[in-house]
Amino acid sequence: MIYLDNSATTKPLPEVLESFMKSAESFYANPSSVHQLGSDAERLLTKSRTLVADLMELEASEVLFTSGGTEANNLAIKGIALKHQNRGKHLITTTIEHPSVLEAFHSLESLGFEVTYVNVDEAGHVDPDEIDKAIRKDTILVSVMSVNNEIGTVQPIEEIGRLTNKYPKLFFHVDHVQGLGKVPIHIKDWSIDLVSISGHKIHGLKGTGALFVRKNVSLFPLLHGGRQEQEKRAGTENLPGIVALAKAIRLIKQKEKDHLQELKALQGDLKQQLRQIDGLVINSPENGAPHIVNISLPGFKPEVLIHKLAENEIYISTKSACSSKQSDVSAVLEACKLEAERSTSSLRISLSYQNTKAEIDQFVQALKSAVVHVTHQ
Amino acid sequence: MIYLDNSATTKPLPEVLESFMKSAESFYANPSSVHQLGSDAERLLTKSRTLVADLMELEASEVLFTSGGTEANNLAIKGIALKHQNRGKHLITTTIEHPSVLEAFHSLESLGFEVTYVNVDEAGHVDPDEIDKAIRKDTILVSVMSVNNEIGTVQPIEEIGRLTNKYPKLFFHVDHVQGLGKVPIHIKDWSIDLVSISGHKIHGLKGTGALFVRKNVSLFPLLHGGRQEQEKRAGTENLPGIVALAKAIRLIKQKEKDHLQELKALQGDLKQQLRQIDGLVINSPENGAPHIVNISLPGFKPEVLIHKLAENEIYISTKSACSSKQSDVSAVLEACKLEAERSTSSLRISLSYQNTKAEIDQFVQALKSAVVHVTHQ
Repeated sequence: MIYLDNSATTKPLPEVLESFMKSAESFYANPSSVHQLGSDAERLLTKSRTLVADLMELEASEVLFTSGGTEANNLAIKGIALKHQNRGKHLITTTIEHPSVLEAFHSLESLGFEVTYVNVDEAGHVDPDEIDKAIRKDTILVSVMSVNNEIGTVQPIEEIGRLTNKYPKLFFHVDHVQGLGKVPIHIKDWSIDLVSISGHKIHGLKGTGALFVRKNVSLFPLLHGGRQEQEKRAGTENLPGIVALAKAIRLIKQKEKDHLQELKALQGDLKQQLRQIDGLVINSPENGAPHIVNISLPGFKPEVLIHKLAENEIYISTKSACSSKQSDVSAVLEACKLEAERSTSSLRISLSYQNTKAEIDQFVQALKSAVVHVTHQ
Repeated sequence: MIYLDNSATTKPLPEVLESFMKSAESFYANPSSVHQLGSDAERLLTKSRTLVADLMELEASEVLFTSGGTEANNLAIKGIALKHQNRGKHLITTTIEHPSVLEAFHSLESLGFEVTYVNVDEAGHVDPDEIDKAIRKDTILVSVMSVNNEIGTVQPIEEIGRLTNKYPKLFFHVDHVQGLGKVPIHIKDWSIDLVSISGHKIHGLKGTGALFVRKNVSLFPLLHGGRQEQEKRAGTENLPGIVALAKAIRLIKQKEKDHLQELKALQGDLKQQLRQIDGLVINSPENGAPHIVNISLPGFKPEVLIHKLAENEIYISTKSACSSKQSDVSAVLEACKLEAERSTSSLRISLSYQNTKAEIDQFVQALKSAVVHVTHQ
């Protein structure tokens, strides 16, 4: 089997599953319980939080565990909007954010907020000047993803942080779900206020994620109740999931340190081989993230190619999983203003550190043969 | 080790962990992916949803998976309030709900909603007539827990359902986190619109839960994004967690069917032995849930007794874990209008189907000796 849909989700690492099992079996007490078992669980929670903080160059109190990237994005966006609406009700984002960002903004529009969706260029890049122009006196939040999930565009987060930092009223949120372990960001140095990540995109577990919230940034919680997570996210902590997340972050950071160049080389090789296929267009930008290659094969129905590849146990995507069952057209490629024949025929190949050159070769062969086969039908 | 803090959290069953592991290893694809692996994951998701629906006497489309009980409660309460606020902004609950209910209501007050907190009697019972009296033209939600988490009071849910059903504008939510598997409810027959449950209270996993939402009940989602969970709760489904939750519900329902009388007998025996201890008062009502016994030992600091018991590896709670680190006083016992010496000296023993008569005997002996020891200090 060749799994090339790692931006949709990844296979959990055995080490991560092992950490989960150990915690679930031995540290099952409620970390809020006052007895010894509760204290043991709380200590493990603190250890995991500190590990994540260290890996992200943050303090432990700035790490807030969530049920995943979607919750982290929603908490950041709605949390800032609802908490700080007395300062202003204008928000800024881009046209190619993940649905969990775009739909969170749409929901706020229904509650009386105004949102500016800044356009991107053909390669998906947002121009920091366009964001600067969109900032008003009543703007309270700018939200921009670090890496686009469909085409892999890397946004100029450092520059945007520099400019949003000039406005003391303004919070800056980065959806870093696709970037973690592949495209480094520096939360403190780049003046980012909130950062979302997800466990299952880095060989961790579904149902795990985190929102990093800088000191002195207050939020309206989505989940009220107990006093967990600095009173920003109530609910009994999913300790085994948190331990597994900390492990997954540690391991992906290690991979990034040791094997990023290999991943880039693998992607380069894949792109070069793909360029040999007649009629194939690469939609991903040259300087994009190292794990995503988005292509179009105008005239081909992407689902047909995907099912053809699946016959050889090769798995890739049409655009993103979160919107993959709705229609053929990619909202991201449309927002990049690509012509319809490209935006309706796109495929996404997304790599992990586990993929090999042999798999890439086999995939390209299978794609070539699928294209011929489908053409001849 | 004798674990008697099962209302705080339970030890996951080996069968539940096994189901989790199998799904995490073999069905890791994103159920939204269009390829074969995605379809396999989606099929397993549908199977789990259908199993849960059957066990709860519901349809599959009425089962919405969440990250736990706190999320389910928040989604029910805020989801109804924000979605239906144009009909009215008045809400009703009781004074002894779980913090995830009470704090969700408090947060809505800060957004302009008005909440009536109906009082309870000394045993924690809410009078349906009091709820009826509180209902106004602009009331859109009544939320009452089935079983109180600190003292085990069972509320008259069927009667409340009968009366709220007379008001077509009104939604009825039941926090069933403590009741599941011990105190049956009938969602359809009792005209309940929304029901919250949690996995980790029934030997399932932390980070899992569900909100049952009857057909035609619309909600404002807390998590916007992809179209998962009937567009009421976005985010990649935690499939291993969902499979584990379905398993845990099936197993606890089986226990309830086969062993409820034994659990009741065990609780009866525990109460009888506790009554022999001088000065000990039982705060739980006679006809309460079969797994919770709340007691007070006026004059004793509960933490001291808990640590004494822990020396013998026996684990019980002061009140609920979700509020256990804040102060000695129990908000629930205060709301029941118990005198301060009782509400500040309470302990909660919470049983599971795994506890034995021998454990109960040993616990009571240890408690007696702790009382003597502490007195003599």
